[in-house]
Formats: sequence, structure tokens, C-alpha cells
Amino acid sequence: KTPAPAPKDKVVLSYQQRSQSPGCHPLSKRIFDIMESKKSNLCISVDTETMEQALTLIEQTGPYVCMVKTHVDIWPDFTQDKVQMLTTLAEKHNFVLFEDRKFADIGNTVQLQCRAGVYRIASWADLVNAHALPGPGILTGLASCAQPADPSARLSGCLLLAQMSSEGTLARGDYTTQCKAMAAGSKDFVMGYICMERISDDPGHLHITPGVKLPPPDATSDGKASGGDGLGQQYNTPEVVIAEKGNDIIVVGRGIYQAADPVQEARRYQEAGWAAYQKKLQP
Amino acid sequence: KTPAPAPKDKVVLSYQQRSQSPGCHPLSKRIFDIMESKKSNLCISVDTETMEQALTLIEQTGPYVCMVKTHVDIWPDFTQDKVQMLTTLAEKHNFVLFEDRKFADIGNTVQLQCRAGVYRIASWADLVNAHALPGPGILTGLASCAQPADPSARLSGCLLLAQMSSEGTLARGDYTTQCKAMAAGSKDFVMGYICMERISDDPGHLHITPGVKLPPPDATSDGKASGGDGLGQQYNTPEVVIAEKGNDIIVVGRGIYQAADPVQEARRYQEAGWAAYQKKLQP
Repeated sequence: KTPAPAPKDKVVLSYQQRSQSPGCHPLSKRIFDIMESKKSNLCISVDTETMEQALTLIEQTGPYVCMVKTHVDIWPDFTQDKVQMLTTLAEKHNFVLFEDRKFADIGNTVQLQCRAGVYRIASWADLVNAHALPGPGILTGLASCAQPADPSARLSGCLLLAQMSSEGTLARGDYTTQCKAMAAGSKDFVMGYICMERISDDPGHLHITPGVKLPPPDATSDGKASGGDGLGQQYNTPEVVIAEKGNDIIVVGRGIYQAADPVQEARRYQEAGWAAYQKKLQP
Repeated sequence: KTPAPAPKDKVVLSYQQRSQSPGCHPLSKRIFDIMESKKSNLCISVDTETMEQALTLIEQTGPYVCMVKTHVDIWPDFTQDKVQMLTTLAEKHNFVLFEDRKFADIGNTVQLQCRAGVYRIASWADLVNAHALPGPGILTGLASCAQPADPSARLSGCLLLAQMSSEGTLARGDYTTQCKAMAAGSKDFVMGYICMERISDDPGHLHITPGVKLPPPDATSDGKASGGDGLGQQYNTPEVVIAEKGNDIIVVGRGIYQAADPVQEARRYQEAGWAAYQKKLQP
């Protein structure tokens, strides 16, 4: 059902070493550098009810994350003024902005969805993601809205969704293999994958993994995340995602923004993610 | 590369007959009825630069279509006031509103994207579409925003993207088969497919096909649509889509909204689509 065991570096390289690998995407290099300097491989997903709540949460948790992942289309109070506050926070706390749009249409349409509309995603997001399902035209369309094709854009990179965390996903096996082929055809734009396990042996490629949750802080930990959300989501711990499965960045949403003390939880996930990375580096 | 030849009704049923088939989704029934009464199997895709332009185009072409397909997230001037104008036009000209959102995330996220945000899609769209890629949780999430689960919603149906019109799409073969299985598990919500050929022998299921284009009105017609858009889109004629491939509704975008005379072109596509349907009905 799942692909063959993920290829592993014989010698595990540090984020710092990987940022120096030949052909590493400039934005990936920046992310590797942020991870090393902040000691964080944590991406916070801020699916709060309002954009105002998200901005407050990002102001509080910004110091502990390397990346902030948004779904701007869930916020009723979205405005371009608040986008400016978002990019100001990104500079202040030194993280990158990842709009988790999961583009999934033909090239001509995603071009319009990414550049235009109310959101103007390409003007403020550093990276977006896309499904490989429509074929390579989706990357041609999106790349036309990004640096260097569009010098006015902030957007410069894209992640392909090679696997998903949800139950019954069809993004597996041969589909995952075809994502890799599509990424190989768009090296200047595709910087890595949304995936559940390391799928590429290119040290410059980022592997970013959603569906991450720790047991509650007061639970007797057996190191396992438990359960789902009743809508198909399945959870893993930072230890499993980073040390066992060989991914690079953990994405945590409800584990932080629904916590009684989101800042404390962000620090807990930052520490757990970094400890898993340190463990992986051990020979 | 493509699935086995599509199943065909031994006796081709009329739209009217199919609206009476057991288990036919109420919204599909309504669409079949509109198609018969307006003699139109044409869905116009209004990917204009602004929502204001789209409203003008819909006012002009509304009499000739059974369905209007939108990408609301490409319009910089989107407002809920204009949505009200859109639904008013839908009543006036008797068509249904299809937001071509191509939802493609986990259940919890699509629930928020469909119900909330700036767009509040579930409050005004009659139907949406979704990729099967994330697994069945995506349908659970979307159905929770729709009639009958949410009585305040206008949304009541969903199409699964079983195939796509773009070059190199991975939505084919086994993927298409799995879409059908997922649809079977959500009969009250899934009303049919976005597809390139008839894939279901359930007479209540709608087969809606994008990427439709006629040769220019002044061309010596060989009955073939030609070329693509340079971003992977591939075109077919109404004759191929309806009569040969057994689909039900043609989706036409640039062929109409980029034409010098969009109203004349809408009528030409309406006639071509209806003629192909009449041809298919011939024993």
C-alpha cells in the first residue's frame, strides 16, 4: 500500500549542510538557515476562526517557529491590511509564510487564483503547495506568478503534495512516484514535498509533514499520538515524523491553536521537534 | 492509459427520463428539468477579470445555459452584495450555480473553506466539486456544510473530479475507479462527476465535461477542436463530448467569454450541445 522504504542519507546531514547542497532552492536555503538559527523545525498552522486571532497567535508563537502555514480562505475578516501585519510579523520573528492553498486546477486557472482575486497570494506568501493531479501545467501556471518570472511577487517556491495525512488518501504508491517525476521537471520552482515520510534523496529538498500531535502535556506519554478528528485526519508524533520517517518540518495546527496555553504548547512542539532532529543526527 | 471504454446505456435515456430514475439527487433532478425546458446542456464558465464583468456576461447569456460555473477566488472585486446579484440572476434565468472550487484538503479544512471565510460558498452555490485525493473525509467535511445537514445552506450537491482535461493529468485509470467507489459511499451528496467520458451507468449521475471548444464561427469546420492554451489545457468539441463520449453537460469558458460576441457564441454552443444530445438520442 505504501511506497518502498524511504531512501535515507547514509550520513544524515544537518540542515546547515543541506542548505549548501548544489541546486538548493534559495528559499529552501533560507528556511534551513532559519531552522538552524532558531533551533526550530516547527511550522504552526493557524486555522483560527478569524485572521485577527491568527495575528495574535503568530505574534506570541513567532519566536518558536520557522514557518507559519495559513488557509487565508477560512477567515471572514481577511483584509490586505492584515496581510501587511502578517508580513511584518514574518520579518520581526524571522519565519516564512506558507499559504496551504493546495492548488488543484489547470494552469490557466491556478495562475489567476494565485495572482489575482481578493487574496493576491503571490504578493505575500513565500511558498504555496499544489497537487500534481492536473499534470505539469499547474506548475507552469503557478511559476508564472512567482519570482523570478514575476519580479513583483514575494512567492518563489512550491511544495508538491506527494502524500497526505488523511485516511483513505489516494496520494500514495505510484501517485507519489509521479509527483517526484513532476518535481524533477520543475527544479527552479518545486522545493520539496508535503509528505508523510522522506521520499527524495536530494539533500536540498524539504519534506514537510502535517498531522502532527503530541499526547497532552499532563498525560503519561507512551510517545504515541492517538486518534483522529472524526473527519479522517490521522496523527503522528514529532519523534516518528522527524527521527523515524526522515522528514524535516513538523506542521502542528490544532495541537497548538486549540490548546489552553498555545505559547507553552508551541515551545513544547519546538523542543520535541528539535530533539527528534538531534536524535536523527546521532551516528 | 485511459480506462476501458465507458459503459453506455443500451437504450439512451433522455434527460427527462433520467430525472425520474430511482435515487436521483434532488439537485440533479432539477438540473435535468432545466436542461429539458431550456434545451440547453451548456454550462458557462465565467472566468472574467472582474465579478462585475461576470455579472454582465451572465445577464446576457443566462437564457442559454443550464449552469453557471464560477471561480470566485479570481475576482478582485468580489463582494457578498454581488453574490446576491448572482443568485438573483440564477432565479431570473433558471440556472444553477456551480462553484468550481476543486476542494482538495482534509475534511476539517474543507469544512471551513466551504462554509466560512470571505466567500461563504455554501451559502450561495448550489453545487461544488472536490478531488477524491484526500480520501472520503473530504466528502464528510463538505456534506456537513450542505443541505440537509445545514438547513441554512444553499449548497446541496457535489461532483467528484474523476478525470481532468489537462495534459499529463494523474486523474485516470485506477484513480478514476477509486473516485467511483468514493461516490458510491456518499450517494446523498455526490451527484456525479467532472470527467472526459461517461464513467457511471447510474442514469441519475451527471457527467460534466470541461475543455470544450468549437472551431471559430468563420472556420471551415472539420468538427474538431484544435490546440491547447500553452498551459496544458486540451480541447474537445460538443459533438465529441456529448455524442461520442456520452457526457451530459459541456463546460465552455474561453470559447465564450473571450469571444468578440459572447452572446452569439453562447447560442452557438447551446445549439451544438443540444444537437449532439439529439443525435445521441437517435436509435
